[in-house]
Amino acid sequence: MSRTEHLGSTGVAIVGAGLVGLGWAIVFARAGLKVRVFDRSKELVATLPAKLEQSLSDLESFGLIEAPQEIGSRVSYCDTLEEAVDGIRYVQESVLERVDVKRALYEQLDGMLGQNTIVGSSSSGIPSSDFTEGLSISPRCLVAHPVNPPYLVPVVELVPASWTLPEVVDQVDDLMHAVGQHPVRVARELRGFVLNRLQGVLLREAWALFEEGYCSTADLDATISKGLGLRWSFIGPFETIDLNAPGGVRDYANRLGGLYLDIVRERGEPQPWSEELIARVDAERRDALPLDGLQDRTEWRDRRLMAVAAHKRDMEASE
Amino acid sequence: MSRTEHLGSTGVAIVGAGLVGLGWAIVFARAGLKVRVFDRSKELVATLPAKLEQSLSDLESFGLIEAPQEIGSRVSYCDTLEEAVDGIRYVQESVLERVDVKRALYEQLDGMLGQNTIVGSSSSGIPSSDFTEGLSISPRCLVAHPVNPPYLVPVVELVPASWTLPEVVDQVDDLMHAVGQHPVRVARELRGFVLNRLQGVLLREAWALFEEGYCSTADLDATISKGLGLRWSFIGPFETIDLNAPGGVRDYANRLGGLYLDIVRERGEPQPWSEELIARVDAERRDALPLDGLQDRTEWRDRRLMAVAAHKRDMEASE
Repeated sequence: MSRTEHLGSTGVAIVGAGLVGLGWAIVFARAGLKVRVFDRSKELVATLPAKLEQSLSDLESFGLIEAPQEIGSRVSYCDTLEEAVDGIRYVQESVLERVDVKRALYEQLDGMLGQNTIVGSSSSGIPSSDFTEGLSISPRCLVAHPVNPPYLVPVVELVPASWTLPEVVDQVDDLMHAVGQHPVRVARELRGFVLNRLQGVLLREAWALFEEGYCSTADLDATISKGLGLRWSFIGPFETIDLNAPGGVRDYANRLGGLYLDIVRERGEPQPWSEELIARVDAERRDALPLDGLQDRTEWRDRRLMAVAAHKRDMEASE
Repeated sequence: MSRTEHLGSTGVAIVGAGLVGLGWAIVFARAGLKVRVFDRSKELVATLPAKLEQSLSDLESFGLIEAPQEIGSRVSYCDTLEEAVDGIRYVQESVLERVDVKRALYEQLDGMLGQNTIVGSSSSGIPSSDFTEGLSISPRCLVAHPVNPPYLVPVVELVPASWTLPEVVDQVDDLMHAVGQHPVRVARELRGFVLNRLQGVLLREAWALFEEGYCSTADLDATISKGLGLRWSFIGPFETIDLNAPGGVRDYANRLGGLYLDIVRERGEPQPWSEELIARVDAERRDALPLDGLQDRTEWRDRRLMAVAAHKRDMEASE
């Protein structure tokens, strides 16, 4: 299938228009696609045009898009689910992360969608088999899990259920490439998918080192943000170690595999984070940033992410 | 102690001038300090002026330094260890990562150093207690572990032995701040220190996901380099999750702590990476990058790291 014939050529539907859904609307509209947005909450929908305008204006100010009005004009808001999905070949489902909410929606969609329509779920943890079983659309459903905000962080995890057709995954892969995202193919369902598993194991070790008094949360953060994270912002963990030994990854594995095995072995039986531990972590974070400063800092983070995105685009363009 | 009176005010000595030692020389010289370099290998020392000039020229081309000649002129090469450390208050030891080699050097240094001289070891894994026991300088020895190259990646792990004086750690902390590095305080020795533990657990999970057929190494790399790594290049894992839940880190821990616990629990007993697994990882990497392309790619990585460093400096300057 050529890139001009991808799933979204005739437009896409976003169902569920919280932060994630609106982020997806920007991804697709930025790529030139028509986007129809539906959310059950009329109150929420009423706030969307202003939010969209703000995000597009921010993106323009970082040189990440041109013509924000034109992009914004591709997004329309629908009063009903039927209207949103009518004639559409790709639906990005981004409703609340709850099995019952998602299941009810998929049952509704089952009667509405055309024979070739595909539904990608933004589910960040629930596998799609928990809410897509036994429907006529089941073979055309999968997880397409973005990182927030998807218009700044390109990775999208594609996770099929056992009944998802392989060509469905291929088509969503093509669509994601076509709109400038970076799809990652996960062969089958697993807890936490891939991104949150990688994040989870690192967090578990960081929390354990803090609990045992080796390091403050600030110093653990600096170990990443002024250390490991610099390289990981443009090469992944395999390439990093491949370039860190004269003979490449094999050489590296032979040198350091034993150390890494010892590190996980000596951790022993994993325990939940205790209330007391959570309180200690919370106390350090609240010292660094009071709760009423979270919103400002989140906006700062998004500006920094925009700057990183612009930086990476410039670097890649010059290579 | 004021910043103008830090340990390095009268110059520093670099002992062991491989990649790490030379990187340190640039860090200190860039900050305006006099640097004396010693290495047992005269052949190696003969190559250093050209390598230094090349690195400084690269840094200048990315706008990361001015006046490379002036910086380079602060670095001198000594014929003997005595000459290098004479009158010096801080020695950055960067010899081969082998206990016997390090021990022999520390025994030599023990008779040479002034009463207040401190020795930081670039050891990336061996705790300093393995090679500094029972010397008159023992209380003034610690690990100061950099990331390569230290003039682009600022984090330095400070790891005291049980006999290291607390004020010694404070003084090295001050010195590292004064020369633009970011010291991370590790309370006591542990296997892999902190940075390699965080890297190690993430690598273990990535290798396991590859082994089980969930993802290619390329897709696992993209999950970081086009996903998690973007934020981690300017905020660490604790701040990342603190900004990812409305109620901050406590809220996040209550929502996702259970998932992360399940992820590590279901991994079960850690196993070594088998020869067959290493061969499969190696095959994917060699497909992506032949062994004879490693050197070029490493140079590309260093240029990208320079660009990231310049980007971060600009961002921080504008805040």
